[in-house]
Amino acid sequence: MVVNQSSAWQALMALAESGVATKHLQDWFQAQPDRAERYSIELDELYLDYSKNRIDDQVLDGLLALAEQQGMAQWIERLVTGDIVNDTEARPALHSALRGLQGAPASGLAAKVQPEIESQFNKMAKIVNKIRAGHWRGYSGKPITDVVNIGVGGSDLGPLMVTHALQVQQSPVRLHFVSSIDGTQTSNLLNTLNQETTLFVLASKSFTTIDTLSNAETAKDWLEERIERSGTLMAQHFIGVSTRPDKMLEWGIPEENQLLFWEWVGGRYSMWSAIGFPIALKVGMKGFYQMLEGANLMDEHFATAPLAENIPVIMGLVDVWNINFLNINAKAILPYDARLKYLPSYFEQLVMESNGKSVNRNGDKVPYKTCPILWGEVGPNAQHAFYQLLHQGTQAVMSDFIVPVERDDFERYSGADKDASLLKQHHLALANCFAQSRVLMLGDAAIPDSLKASFNSPYKHYEGNQPSNTILLKTLSAKTLGMLVALYEHKTFVESVVWEINPFDQWGVELGKLIAKETYACLAEDAPLASFDASTQALMKRVK
Amino acid sequence: MVVNQSSAWQALMALAESGVATKHLQDWFQAQPDRAERYSIELDELYLDYSKNRIDDQVLDGLLALAEQQGMAQWIERLVTGDIVNDTEARPALHSALRGLQGAPASGLAAKVQPEIESQFNKMAKIVNKIRAGHWRGYSGKPITDVVNIGVGGSDLGPLMVTHALQVQQSPVRLHFVSSIDGTQTSNLLNTLNQETTLFVLASKSFTTIDTLSNAETAKDWLEERIERSGTLMAQHFIGVSTRPDKMLEWGIPEENQLLFWEWVGGRYSMWSAIGFPIALKVGMKGFYQMLEGANLMDEHFATAPLAENIPVIMGLVDVWNINFLNINAKAILPYDARLKYLPSYFEQLVMESNGKSVNRNGDKVPYKTCPILWGEVGPNAQHAFYQLLHQGTQAVMSDFIVPVERDDFERYSGADKDASLLKQHHLALANCFAQSRVLMLGDAAIPDSLKASFNSPYKHYEGNQPSNTILLKTLSAKTLGMLVALYEHKTFVESVVWEINPFDQWGVELGKLIAKETYACLAEDAPLASFDASTQALMKRVK
Repeated sequence: MVVNQSSAWQALMALAESGVATKHLQDWFQAQPDRAERYSIELDELYLDYSKNRIDDQVLDGLLALAEQQGMAQWIERLVTGDIVNDTEARPALHSALRGLQGAPASGLAAKVQPEIESQFNKMAKIVNKIRAGHWRGYSGKPITDVVNIGVGGSDLGPLMVTHALQVQQSPVRLHFVSSIDGTQTSNLLNTLNQETTLFVLASKSFTTIDTLSNAETAKDWLEERIERSGTLMAQHFIGVSTRPDKMLEWGIPEENQLLFWEWVGGRYSMWSAIGFPIALKVGMKGFYQMLEGANLMDEHFATAPLAENIPVIMGLVDVWNINFLNINAKAILPYDARLKYLPSYFEQLVMESNGKSVNRNGDKVPYKTCPILWGEVGPNAQHAFYQLLHQGTQAVMSDFIVPVERDDFERYSGADKDASLLKQHHLALANCFAQSRVLMLGDAAIPDSLKASFNSPYKHYEGNQPSNTILLKTLSAKTLGMLVALYEHKTFVESVVWEINPFDQWGVELGKLIAKETYACLAEDAPLASFDASTQALMKRVK
Repeated sequence: MVVNQSSAWQALMALAESGVATKHLQDWFQAQPDRAERYSIELDELYLDYSKNRIDDQVLDGLLALAEQQGMAQWIERLVTGDIVNDTEARPALHSALRGLQGAPASGLAAKVQPEIESQFNKMAKIVNKIRAGHWRGYSGKPITDVVNIGVGGSDLGPLMVTHALQVQQSPVRLHFVSSIDGTQTSNLLNTLNQETTLFVLASKSFTTIDTLSNAETAKDWLEERIERSGTLMAQHFIGVSTRPDKMLEWGIPEENQLLFWEWVGGRYSMWSAIGFPIALKVGMKGFYQMLEGANLMDEHFATAPLAENIPVIMGLVDVWNINFLNINAKAILPYDARLKYLPSYFEQLVMESNGKSVNRNGDKVPYKTCPILWGEVGPNAQHAFYQLLHQGTQAVMSDFIVPVERDDFERYSGADKDASLLKQHHLALANCFAQSRVLMLGDAAIPDSLKASFNSPYKHYEGNQPSNTILLKTLSAKTLGMLVALYEHKTFVESVVWEINPFDQWGVELGKLIAKETYACLAEDAPLASFDASTQALMKRVK
């Protein structure tokens, strides 16, 4: 039976249609003065307030019944112990094993892989420490000052997002990221670097990603302008991170410069593996392990907390409610700290590549909506960009507000004017965060009596009733980032269980890769155009 | 009469329901082998291919009839001559006057404002040339090396987007942008700069934007750690760009450091005014004027080309078709050149802040969809992130592919291996761009016969039929950027005319600002919490 025909789904649909779906958030809040305590969960340094959703106990009970009907607890266990949850590729999805703390109990495959993980992390630690200590030298004997990560998608976004978020921490090397196949990032970056002191990290799960290999070729050509001995070049200027030692060796990367991960780590779940190498370069292995510990806290919670008190389960179920029963098809990710600039892009990949699917585990097309459009921006900046649409547009949008309660990028008690000014800015950010979710929820009802007269215009009408979550982090740290990202990973899995789809494959991107090869052959090598459609032919003729 | 009750709208609806809306793009292409010529328009260095939309002559005729019914030509004339098109604020929207070339014929207000524009551009040119020549000195007599633009929204995104896009051009000063109210960008940037050689640009239309003023205070506190004489500090380290000389003076910025623009320039349309100061610093006044010339080319085209051959009109109408008749509520902006990294954010603001509205010019709530969700990413990177959803998700999405045909960030005939490698990367980017729009259009029909067997799985099924535009730019230059941005400005206006909304106000952001003030008073100054809802109270208590 397809899930939307099931009794739990039908009961929720009946509930939605009974008037619950059209009830305004303002009314929910008036009816339940204790919503904030009732609909919030805290875990260590992370606090989720999900009270500004159009839910009550009856809705939550219905959603939990749906979760139970779908075997949520069993699926969670299958996930974390290493069962084949990625069935179209016959693989487990064991990213949580990467965060399994040494000596912590693990079972199934999760236990078996621990020694391999430890061995690679030890190798990574040696390389990281050598570079950070200035002992890794370039071809002319000078210490490395700049490290360029060449990777794309899962091999780029995680390290980019985390190192930017943790920018306050001083690193002995400068980190750079190039990703896009067009090579403009690479060409412009190389103009600012010195061959003697630059090290490249080639990060690719398959080590066949053309985006990464083409950028790597450009980097190699640039190095060869100065370095003639290819052995030196490979040994001192390239590190590889991949599941494929054979391919790395073929490209020329010696074994001692290879860091491995495994097929059971999905690309978009790989920053916890050696793909996180740039993170460790930025914050040291200690910081990298703190990030794993944060994620592990969330893993333990996800695996053991009752469904009704389980943060990823609740967040996932509430989004299912919003999407499938309230017909909300877009979600905004709104961090109120500019250091989280790349978080929206990171979550866009995590969520849309995982759940942007329409065929269930039985191979049938699903007759209901799955993944919404996710997008976002640093919240205060988005207030000056697209919040107009959130407040007064014709689209229903759900939002996640994310903000650290404390800040560590200035000294609160230093007495310096600049630090006092930054404390004020922090309070302004928090105030804006809370104010926006309040206005999105209440609409006109948020207008204070003293201002009602000046808002008496159809153009100053705010509908409200746009649901949101608010996530408070104690501070922005490797640990809380680990918790936050693991939360979204698991929440995404929860939704996939309800929708009966496999969140761990990505067949949708295969055909484009093949057609790009065919197209490239025509553009660069003059293969005949005739097999293409009229539009593609015309576009190619304009290039030639 | 509301537009969706009009005869032109009803005729389009009938057409959509007659089977046109469900016809597959593959069938459109089979039926019309000349679609590429028929549904493309070229203007100077910009080429639009809109053939991969679910349209034919009948649909276009219907859309053009809708445009005529809505008085499109008259609205365009009203816009460019300076009529009060922003009626809720009783202002014209005369950004096109900023691009009016000297000596070119202009009428109405557009003619009257030319002397003021010229005078401010001349003042801007003097300052720009002084800084670029190293003649603008900091307090200790050293030339300025770093310029920090402090602005948000329209006072940030345009200069940020354009200077990043034109990164190949060498600038004698380093440019930085800080925007977010939380101050993390500012605090972390200041740690890397030197007070002696840093100049700040405060850009704010109203000069009351708290985001910008709070960052400016932090910058001032930082300067005061080294500079005691406030006259020197203001005269040598701050430039203001605003419509409000009085407010700038009050803040301490002397008249000679003030650049002015005018109420009739909307914030999100202001990069053509002195708000574009950082652009001129990057590429010189010559480059800045080239950008204006590019936009002016598009303005002339928009004002004079017949509707059926008018690029912004056609793009706007086709999107109206997609949104209101094919029920597509999301649009992806996909540049295939990483230098256009900030273009999606720029267009998100331009489009969603303009048209994210639901009340028409008569003050009535509209009974149809207006602005879709816009988001995007550098295309090749998005292939590894959210294209999965575009190809196999449950959401209909329209896309704009944007790519330069030629590149100027390497020397094609230099003979250097690196440059040959970059040429290959450019071809790979083009090939991926064309391949992706092809697969989104055709779906399974794009699979070559030789590969059909390996795609015989429900998980490798591609529905296709996702519409897209492809925009080719000759190269990425100040001129083509000017054309491109003006195209989207006008296209957005075209949609607003169909929807009968005012795209130039933004009342939706007002309430949040006021509530943020109230919230800040509670957080930082201990005002009582009792007037807030339960969720906001609980969040604030956790911060205190």
